[in-house]
Amino acid sequence: MAGVKPDGAVPPLRTAEVIAVGSELLGTSRLDTNSLFIAQKLGELGIELRAKAVVGDERRRLHEIFVHALGRADLVLLTGGLGPTDDDLTREVVAAALSLELIEDETITARIRARFERRGMRMPDLNRRQAMVPRGAVALPNANGTAPGLLILAGDRVVVLLPGPPRELQPILSALCEETGALGRRAGRERIHTVSLFTTGRSESHVEEATQPLYSQWREASPPIETTILATPGQVEIHLSLRSDDGPSARRILEDARAQLADALGDSVFTTSGRTLPQVVGERLLERKLTLAAAESCTGGLLLQRLTDVAGSSAYVRGGIVAYDNRVKETLLDVPPDLIARHGAVSEPVAAAMVEGLRARTGADVCVAITGIAGPGGGTEAKPVGTVVIAVEVPGRALEVRTHLFPGGREMVRLQATQSALDRVRRLLD
Amino acid sequence: MAGVKPDGAVPPLRTAEVIAVGSELLGTSRLDTNSLFIAQKLGELGIELRAKAVVGDERRRLHEIFVHALGRADLVLLTGGLGPTDDDLTREVVAAALSLELIEDETITARIRARFERRGMRMPDLNRRQAMVPRGAVALPNANGTAPGLLILAGDRVVVLLPGPPRELQPILSALCEETGALGRRAGRERIHTVSLFTTGRSESHVEEATQPLYSQWREASPPIETTILATPGQVEIHLSLRSDDGPSARRILEDARAQLADALGDSVFTTSGRTLPQVVGERLLERKLTLAAAESCTGGLLLQRLTDVAGSSAYVRGGIVAYDNRVKETLLDVPPDLIARHGAVSEPVAAAMVEGLRARTGADVCVAITGIAGPGGGTEAKPVGTVVIAVEVPGRALEVRTHLFPGGREMVRLQATQSALDRVRRLLD
Repeated sequence: MAGVKPDGAVPPLRTAEVIAVGSELLGTSRLDTNSLFIAQKLGELGIELRAKAVVGDERRRLHEIFVHALGRADLVLLTGGLGPTDDDLTREVVAAALSLELIEDETITARIRARFERRGMRMPDLNRRQAMVPRGAVALPNANGTAPGLLILAGDRVVVLLPGPPRELQPILSALCEETGALGRRAGRERIHTVSLFTTGRSESHVEEATQPLYSQWREASPPIETTILATPGQVEIHLSLRSDDGPSARRILEDARAQLADALGDSVFTTSGRTLPQVVGERLLERKLTLAAAESCTGGLLLQRLTDVAGSSAYVRGGIVAYDNRVKETLLDVPPDLIARHGAVSEPVAAAMVEGLRARTGADVCVAITGIAGPGGGTEAKPVGTVVIAVEVPGRALEVRTHLFPGGREMVRLQATQSALDRVRRLLD
Repeated sequence: MAGVKPDGAVPPLRTAEVIAVGSELLGTSRLDTNSLFIAQKLGELGIELRAKAVVGDERRRLHEIFVHALGRADLVLLTGGLGPTDDDLTREVVAAALSLELIEDETITARIRARFERRGMRMPDLNRRQAMVPRGAVALPNANGTAPGLLILAGDRVVVLLPGPPRELQPILSALCEETGALGRRAGRERIHTVSLFTTGRSESHVEEATQPLYSQWREASPPIETTILATPGQVEIHLSLRSDDGPSARRILEDARAQLADALGDSVFTTSGRTLPQVVGERLLERKLTLAAAESCTGGLLLQRLTDVAGSSAYVRGGIVAYDNRVKETLLDVPPDLIARHGAVSEPVAAAMVEGLRARTGADVCVAITGIAGPGGGTEAKPVGTVVIAVEVPGRALEVRTHLFPGGREMVRLQATQSALDRVRRLLD
């Protein structure tokens, strides 16, 4: 790795392009997701991903796209196409484009052979192809597969070949991006620092409105803070990033910015550490040693499923009742039939009765009930699709019942209903 | 649209490349998903997607990548970058690369202005940019946004510019790809025909083993049938496709192939029409006029959530009990405490008792119980993480109780447990 040692004469890597190789990535069902991880790791080193490409197992196109990328970017990463079959062209195409001879690296052959032998198998002759490397390339050990990664210096530029499966690619790239790794040592002194802040209970435009004056101010600051807003049903995420060669100062600036944002957005902010709303609610319940139960009608189990997705949730989730059918509301939640007849199943009195029945049946401290019309059928003029009633009771507080009207289709209504219920619990436990 | 009429002298479009424009697609959280839809629509016309690129709002890179793509492919589609701001470069870069002047199309301006006026707003001057089109381009009306798509003929080649938001892009592209649309009329006589077949209860390698002889035979046939296998937790999908200019014959060949596959795979095939397992189970319940209830421990509501994701599921899902805590198993499902003490909560006797209690409480025809260890904690040597007991009872059949050991982490174990439970219901209702 002598060639990649820090050296005053070698300019730092600033820009990168990624090329994902594999015909399966051009079809109707699979996307190249490795590029998200790559953007993250390179970003931490201050190396900006400027373009991505996906190309099939096709020699001429791969050659052209690689040569053009290398003409534009300091670093080109290729993922996939390192398998043992004739279809796997990445090694050959890169070697040819850089006019490097392909030679067998006996160390790699031995490593692949040992890998097969550990499983009591002989190495198929085919796998020798995976030990062919462009002369001068550095092999990057792959703990989770047979194909090693490869690092090649092309003048001031760097080319990295990585296997396609994420569990093979990620550890190899992480090692390269450590401060002492081949890419870490070639990065400039600038890093991209980031913080984030997630809100719920406000629309994207409300969040924009509340924060616009801050953004304008930050864009003009030196160094400027970049903001990205991502909206998903029931959640708006704000990501701030800053390019700087002074870590402590960058972190201070970003913490200040985050505090200003948090002030502007108030208690709609539920996390500044990237946690999900079910995680945040779980932590509050744990802190306060409370248990939770839910009675779900239109969400059909989604709320409990999201809560129990969190590892360790058995410490605070007691369970609940999915009362999709009105008979279940009556027999398992003791909702009086005449209450349903009088007000309808989607009504505040019924939601309140669901909480009451749930508490009596489960003895949980925090009880949540959701009843609504997720659609596409079932809406009326008075109660259109998207109407959802949520009742929440936490110890020491009066029962809270609210009627919402959520936009969107069935999936969005269900998701927003659970998000809103979780947010009520979070606020009531504040 | 005179220029795109069928014409003996114009060769059909065979290959395409896609370029997605927008810096937000180069970060750590968003992927270009439009290309999946594009691959699908073009595939139906026999036009093969050969490469994709993503590039930021950066003039030089976009210019280069566009020019190179146009040098290789018959059709280049660009998505995004058609907004009204300075960042939106697609129109300008394409016009410059093709040496076409940008002129304002008054019809488009009028349409955008009318769109604003319908909402009681004045059109901001900025939006005039969206009416600028390369001379000779055909505007493609956008029912869901301000920016029209554009179609440009560049010699024998075709360039299409589409807005980035899927709900704007999809209708425009669909119209272009109709037999009478500008792309439909330029497609060759060959189409790509497809069928699919989804299985559950068999691993990917078992499916491969059972079907390998068929694949080899089909690969050598004329025209060859291409097969793609996609494995997700608890499900293996087989997609067959065939390129042919004779529709009826292609469909016959594919139907034959699908029948052979179905024979080889037996009752692990749950759909040949792309439906999900919860949909298939729902249809069987509806046909037989049966209701279903579930008692879930480790899956925490996921089974009921997946069943009720299906619109119209209220016709057969009665509801159920999420008995995450053992007390809930005792109080709401009447599982005898000493049964849990003797055998443990994850045991066949407890799963059987959960079904019994569930039936008594809900009166549902089909009752399903799931109890297991999803991890990461809670495993023992005798019952490691991934141990899941599933009990199913359907009318006229004896109660069926089975113990499984599912691989993978918490999420995979939970997903496979629900998939397996749904599959048991499907088979017992056969």
